[in-house]
Amino acid sequence: MSNAIFYHAGCPVCVSAEQQVLEALDKDRYNIEVVHLGEDASRINEAEDAGIKSVPALLLDGAVFHINFGAAVNDLK
Amino acid sequence: MSNAIFYHAGCPVCVSAEQQVLEALDKDRYNIEVVHLGEDASRINEAEDAGIKSVPALLLDGAVFHINFGAAVNDLK
Repeated sequence: MSNAIFYHAGCPVCVSAEQQVLEALDKDRYNIEVVHLGEDASRINEAEDAGIKSVPALLLDGAVFHINFGAAVNDLK
Repeated sequence: MSNAIFYHAGCPVCVSAEQQVLEALDKDRYNIEVVHLGEDASRINEAEDAGIKSVPALLLDGAVFHINFGAAVNDLK
């Protein structure tokens, strides 16, 4: 299985992207995890280490895809 | 079936996103089309009408997701 992690911060841009992008992923092949950085600040460092600059962002097997723009990760600290 | 259209312009950012994001989509549920706006400028208007400002971008049933940033659509004209 491949891994997909969707980082967001609960903003409207994030929620819309979460619902539609995750819905489109192939759940037979991807373990999908959703991380709310606004509620779980302990994972901000992990997101930054992965290269995430803003949310919403999708990490597909370690590759970062910034999707639209909701908030900068720096503003979540 | 739902529709997924991936607009790109052949740049490295676009190609990387195309390969990984399209690979992750559920092909049993999505008709996937790839449009190279650099080679097919006749579809730039369609992309703009859909709300696309930059490429690479993914259109999922009409909803625009700008993924990372390769080039502004305006620069492709």
